[in-house]
Amino acid sequence: MNKTDQKKDAKKPNESTALSPAINKELGHISVLKFGGTSVKNLARIQHVAEIVRDRLEANKKQNNSGTPTKLLVVVSAMGDTTDYLLKLGSQCARNPDRRELDSLLSTGEQISITLLAMTLKELGIKSRSFTAAQIGIFTEKVHSKARIVDINSENLAKALKENDVLVVAGFQGITADGDITTLGRGGSDTTACALAAATSAQICDIYTDVDGIFTADPNVVPEARLLKRVSYGEVIEMARLGAQVLHPRAVELARQYKVLMRVRNTFKPDHEGTVIDGGEDMEIYRSISGVAVDKDQACVTIMDVPDKPGIAGSIMQSLADNHIVIDMIMQAFHPTAGHNNITFTVHSNDLAATIKILEEIKGDLDASSVIADEDIAKVSLIGAGLAGQSGIAATVFKAFGAAGINIKMIATSEMKLTCVVSGKDADKAGKIMHSSFGED
Amino acid sequence: MNKTDQKKDAKKPNESTALSPAINKELGHISVLKFGGTSVKNLARIQHVAEIVRDRLEANKKQNNSGTPTKLLVVVSAMGDTTDYLLKLGSQCARNPDRRELDSLLSTGEQISITLLAMTLKELGIKSRSFTAAQIGIFTEKVHSKARIVDINSENLAKALKENDVLVVAGFQGITADGDITTLGRGGSDTTACALAAATSAQICDIYTDVDGIFTADPNVVPEARLLKRVSYGEVIEMARLGAQVLHPRAVELARQYKVLMRVRNTFKPDHEGTVIDGGEDMEIYRSISGVAVDKDQACVTIMDVPDKPGIAGSIMQSLADNHIVIDMIMQAFHPTAGHNNITFTVHSNDLAATIKILEEIKGDLDASSVIADEDIAKVSLIGAGLAGQSGIAATVFKAFGAAGINIKMIATSEMKLTCVVSGKDADKAGKIMHSSFGED
Repeated sequence: MNKTDQKKDAKKPNESTALSPAINKELGHISVLKFGGTSVKNLARIQHVAEIVRDRLEANKKQNNSGTPTKLLVVVSAMGDTTDYLLKLGSQCARNPDRRELDSLLSTGEQISITLLAMTLKELGIKSRSFTAAQIGIFTEKVHSKARIVDINSENLAKALKENDVLVVAGFQGITADGDITTLGRGGSDTTACALAAATSAQICDIYTDVDGIFTADPNVVPEARLLKRVSYGEVIEMARLGAQVLHPRAVELARQYKVLMRVRNTFKPDHEGTVIDGGEDMEIYRSISGVAVDKDQACVTIMDVPDKPGIAGSIMQSLADNHIVIDMIMQAFHPTAGHNNITFTVHSNDLAATIKILEEIKGDLDASSVIADEDIAKVSLIGAGLAGQSGIAATVFKAFGAAGINIKMIATSEMKLTCVVSGKDADKAGKIMHSSFGED
Repeated sequence: MNKTDQKKDAKKPNESTALSPAINKELGHISVLKFGGTSVKNLARIQHVAEIVRDRLEANKKQNNSGTPTKLLVVVSAMGDTTDYLLKLGSQCARNPDRRELDSLLSTGEQISITLLAMTLKELGIKSRSFTAAQIGIFTEKVHSKARIVDINSENLAKALKENDVLVVAGFQGITADGDITTLGRGGSDTTACALAAATSAQICDIYTDVDGIFTADPNVVPEARLLKRVSYGEVIEMARLGAQVLHPRAVELARQYKVLMRVRNTFKPDHEGTVIDGGEDMEIYRSISGVAVDKDQACVTIMDVPDKPGIAGSIMQSLADNHIVIDMIMQAFHPTAGHNNITFTVHSNDLAATIKILEEIKGDLDASSVIADEDIAKVSLIGAGLAGQSGIAATVFKAFGAAGINIKMIATSEMKLTCVVSGKDADKAGKIMHSSFGED
C-alpha cells in the first residue's frame, strides 16, 4: 500500500521538475536547508536559524572557488505549535471542518515563519526573499491534507535563485492547478525540502531538527542507543515507517529516487556532523542492522467473519486507499469450520476513527459480522539492510520477548525489517530487549 | 493631493473590472457584506457573522422572485488585533521590516478569518468558499503596504459565484502581476468590498461595524450626536478624511465612482437600518450640514525659511507624494522682509517620522533653514454639502471658539467643509462647540 503511494509521489516530479543541467549550472552551487517547527519556535530561534543560514552561505562561498554563484534554499515549517493551534480553531468552527478551508488555514502557519525568517535574513544583510508554495509554484494533486507534489515550476525557481542568495520557502504546503491551497500531510516540510533539492540538483539537503541525527533507537527509551554516522535511504525509510520519529518515509523515498544526498543535523549544535543518508552502497560490509523503532501511535482493526471468497481483502484495502488511509501490517486468520476469515491490520491512530467509519459502511456488502479495534498496541521493529541474511536474530528476539513475558500479537518480516506488534504497556521494554539482542548496547 | 490619489485608485478598475451585463445577469442578485476586525474578533463572533450571512441569504432569496440566483460576497478583515500582533512580530525581527515580507505576513490575518468563516458557513449548510486576494485575483500596483487596486479577475469571480452561494473574500490584501502579496493600507477591507461591489454591479455594499451608522459627530465626544439615516458620498468622504472614523475615503470614492449603494450597519444590531450612503441628489433640500469630525491623529510640520521662488512648494509636495505620504492642509506664511516663506502642512501622525526624514534630506537643496513638527494638534471640522451657501456658520464657529478660549492655529475651507487646527487638549471641546453651533443638539 504504502510503497505504491510513495512511488507515485516520487515519480511525478521526475517527469517535470528537474531543472535542465544548463539552467542548473548557471544557478550555481545550491544547498537545501530545512528547519522544523521546534527550530523556529519563537523569534529568538528564528534569529538563531538566520545566523546558521548566514554562516552556511559564507562557508559555502569560501569553499566554492569556481566563481559560480552559491545559493541556499531554506525550507521552514510553522513556528512551534502554530499548526496545532490553527487546527484547534478550525475544529471549533465545525465538527468536521471543510478540508479545503482547513488547508488554506494551516498554510498561514508557514507563511508567517517564512516572512519572519526572510525579514531577519535581510536585517543581516542577506539578499533573501520568502515564497509560499503558490508563489514559487509547488503544484500538488487535488487532495486536501495529504497532497502529493506533482510538479515544481522550474522557471519561477530559476528566476528567484538568480535574484536572491537565499530563498525561504514554505514547507508542508502546495497549490493545485486551480489555485487551491493544499497541505502535504505528515512529513510535509521534509518532502518539500527533498523535492526542491531534486528540482535544483542540490548538492545536499540538510534536515535540521532538535536531535543530533539518527540513532539506533530512541535514546529516550533505550539509553544505550548510538548515533549513526551514515545510513542508507532504505533503512531510514523502514525506520521511519516503523515509528522512529526522524524523517517521513515519503521525503526519503523522494531523495532516494533522485539521489539527493541528505543529512540530519541538530539546529542547536550546528557544528555537529549529524547523520548522512545516501545510497549506502558499501554499508552491508560493516553493519547488518541499523536500529530499533518503537511506534505507539498505532491501532489494530479487525473485521470479523468475512466470507472466504477471493478479492474480499483487496476490496477492503481499496476502500481504505480511496480515502487515503495507509494500512500497514495485515494478518488474515482463517476459521476452517466456519469458512470465514478475520482480517486484522494496523493503521495510524489518527486514521482509526475514519477507518472504523469506512468499514462499518462496507460491512454489510462484505457480509462481515463486526468491526473491532484495539488502540492499546505498539509496533516494535528491528531494521537493517542485512537482516535477510541473519535469520538467527529473529529467533533471538522471540526468545528474549518470551523470557520477559512479552506477548507478540502480530509479526511481519521483510528483507529489511522484523516487526512485532505488542501491548502498549510492553512497548518500551520490547524496544530495549530488541536493541540489546542485536548487540548494539 | 489626496484627491488625485483617490481618483487614480478609482479609475483603474473602471477600465477592466466591471463585469459585462450579460455575465452579471447570469450571476444573479449580488449583495456585498463587509465585516471588520471587531465583528470577527473571536470564534463566537464569527459564528454570529455566519448567522447574519445565512439570514441575509434567506431574506434575499425570499425577496427575489424572478428566479435569478441570489449570491453574497462577504469580505472580512483579520480577527481583532491579529494585524497588530503580526506587525509587532515583524518589528521584532527587523528594525525596518522589508515591506514585501511584511505584507505577506499581514495577509495571513485575513486568510485565517476567511477560512474560519467559510468553515462555519459550510457547517450551517451553505455553499461557501474562501478566497484570498491571490485566489480570486485582486490585482494591485506594485507598492507595498498602501497598494491600490488596478484590476479584479472577473472570470474567476464569475466562476466562483456560479459554484457557490457565498464567497468569503479576504479584505485588505491584493496581489501584483508578479505574484507578490500586497496590502491596501488603512481602509483596505472597505476598499476591497466596494471594488468587488463595483466589479459585480452588486445591489448594495453593506459595511458592518460596531456602531449604529454614521453620526453627526463622535458620540463618545459629543453625546448629543445624531445618527444620520442618509448621507452623500461626498459628505462621508470629507467626514472620513477629516477624522471621523467611519469609512476610509478611498472606499467611498470608489463607491461614488461606480454608483455603488453603500450602507453602514451594526453587526451587533443586525435589524437596525444603519446609514445609507448614496449620491444624495435631493439632500441639500432638507439638510445643509451633516456632521462634525475630530481627528487627533494629526501632526503639523513646518519647513522654515524657504526662499520665495516659484515651484518650491510643489517640489516639496512631490517628494512627499513620491513616498506615498498624503498631506492635507497647507499654509504658506510669507516674511516680506526676509524674502522667505514658512510652509506648514498637516500629515497623519503615522507618517510624521517619514515626513521629517524626507524633509531633512531635501532641506539643503531647498535652501531652507530647518524643519519643525508639532504633534499636539487636532483637526476639528464641520462637514456639509450645503456649507458653501451658509457663510454665517463659519463666523458663528469662530466666535464660539474665541469665547471658549480656543486658539485656532490653521483654517481651511472648501465647498463642503470648514476645518480648524487647534491644540490637542482643546479638540473635544472644540468638537462639541462646533456641533452645537450648527444646531444639531
